[in-house]
Amino acid sequence: MDTSKQSAQGEQIAPELAEISLVLVETSHPGNIGSSARAAKTMGMRRLRLVAPKQFPHPDATALASGADDLLEQASRHDSLDEALADCGVAYACSARRRGIRLAELDPRQFASHALEQARKGPVAVVFGNERVGLSNEEIERCQFLVRIPSNPQFGSLNLAAAVQVLTFELRMAALDQVGRLKTEPDPRLPAPLAEMERMFEHLQQVLERIRFFGSRSPVRMMARLRRLLQRGLPDAHEVAILRGILSQIEYMLDHPGRDRKDDNAS
Amino acid sequence: MDTSKQSAQGEQIAPELAEISLVLVETSHPGNIGSSARAAKTMGMRRLRLVAPKQFPHPDATALASGADDLLEQASRHDSLDEALADCGVAYACSARRRGIRLAELDPRQFASHALEQARKGPVAVVFGNERVGLSNEEIERCQFLVRIPSNPQFGSLNLAAAVQVLTFELRMAALDQVGRLKTEPDPRLPAPLAEMERMFEHLQQVLERIRFFGSRSPVRMMARLRRLLQRGLPDAHEVAILRGILSQIEYMLDHPGRDRKDDNAS
Repeated sequence: MDTSKQSAQGEQIAPELAEISLVLVETSHPGNIGSSARAAKTMGMRRLRLVAPKQFPHPDATALASGADDLLEQASRHDSLDEALADCGVAYACSARRRGIRLAELDPRQFASHALEQARKGPVAVVFGNERVGLSNEEIERCQFLVRIPSNPQFGSLNLAAAVQVLTFELRMAALDQVGRLKTEPDPRLPAPLAEMERMFEHLQQVLERIRFFGSRSPVRMMARLRRLLQRGLPDAHEVAILRGILSQIEYMLDHPGRDRKDDNAS
Repeated sequence: MDTSKQSAQGEQIAPELAEISLVLVETSHPGNIGSSARAAKTMGMRRLRLVAPKQFPHPDATALASGADDLLEQASRHDSLDEALADCGVAYACSARRRGIRLAELDPRQFASHALEQARKGPVAVVFGNERVGLSNEEIERCQFLVRIPSNPQFGSLNLAAAVQVLTFELRMAALDQVGRLKTEPDPRLPAPLAEMERMFEHLQQVLERIRFFGSRSPVRMMARLRRLLQRGLPDAHEVAILRGILSQIEYMLDHPGRDRKDDNAS
């Protein structure tokens, strides 16, 4: 049941995400194309555009796609970034901040809601550069927005697939958010009625008195403490019944001394 | 100038993130340990705990860390998950939704703000399973929260480093978000170390066996249920000590039959 509901959810948000193409520019290692495809597919994206990949198709790409090879097969190939972006209304360049570039800069979260909105109007591109040198200033200037992943200033080097994973994850979160489905599966447990909780606490206090647990401690304060602990977990009716079962069993054993030792030859 | 500002910001948020350990359980491929270290370091995380890695140290780990080998060198190694979590107050299991597991479920964003708040109080763990089989139900039950990355229901298989990248990215975004913000009054209670929780659960099981509570019920399932109930409330060390005090007192009374009736003329 979970599965069918999830599937429906996946399909419902797919059309929006599917309008967004990931554009990989001059990728050196075919394995990185594969792992980027995998990352994209886990987040429900479908479109890859490859600009002058060094080696493609390639067994490493297929191997690292590990199941996302449909995205590789459907990927379009282009000789230039201009060609790859020709039909897109908006393009976002994923890059570290760069001197001399004055594009509007978005963080991944701002990017995601912005790009989703644009994707309702038509094709949108997110552009990732070569693994070693990134995007050139010229390439960045083909885009309208710069997306910067706010990484550790002392160690900012996400690999290509990791950057794809982060941005597509944000797109998916934004899409889920917009269909109002981001909410995690609601906790199906119903808290036990308070009257049952009260009977359980009364029972607990009786048993604690009977086993002389309170001693010199204040029963009122100790019960308040136990009450807070158990209430924080919002037990459901079944759980309250289990606790009462334990209390009853303690009483039974105290009423029938020695039963706990019946089969217990060790101690 | 930008760089210095970023550095200062990086340092400012570092202490909080550094309290959060990433726990990699029985990782098969050392390369995945390396790329997880790289992913973690790009987001300013520093602590890795490795539970029974199949091969480590290994040249593949170092190669794929590509500059994050300091995290590998400082990583601690553990024989069991219990050992790795012993000093942690809160542990989050990163896993797909699973039947029969009823931990409170968080999405990555909810997880990040929750974990950051807990990290102000002490060590916190985020637990990732083996690449192929993920975390077992038993391992998940050592944790108090399940974190599910809302991936494509038709293709949900993020690789290990990708999952690490997504969750550490969310932690970093949350940390950046909180810098300079007025924090809500934090809950002052410190969760008990998980090792104390485990000893309490062992003690509880012993007492329940002794009072013959399980009867025809499955002790494993019943304990899992009680574990969830008590974990949901995130008991602090004092509360755990109270529960153990109750258990000890039950044992004392069973060892000394009749004491419970000494002053009890009513029944």
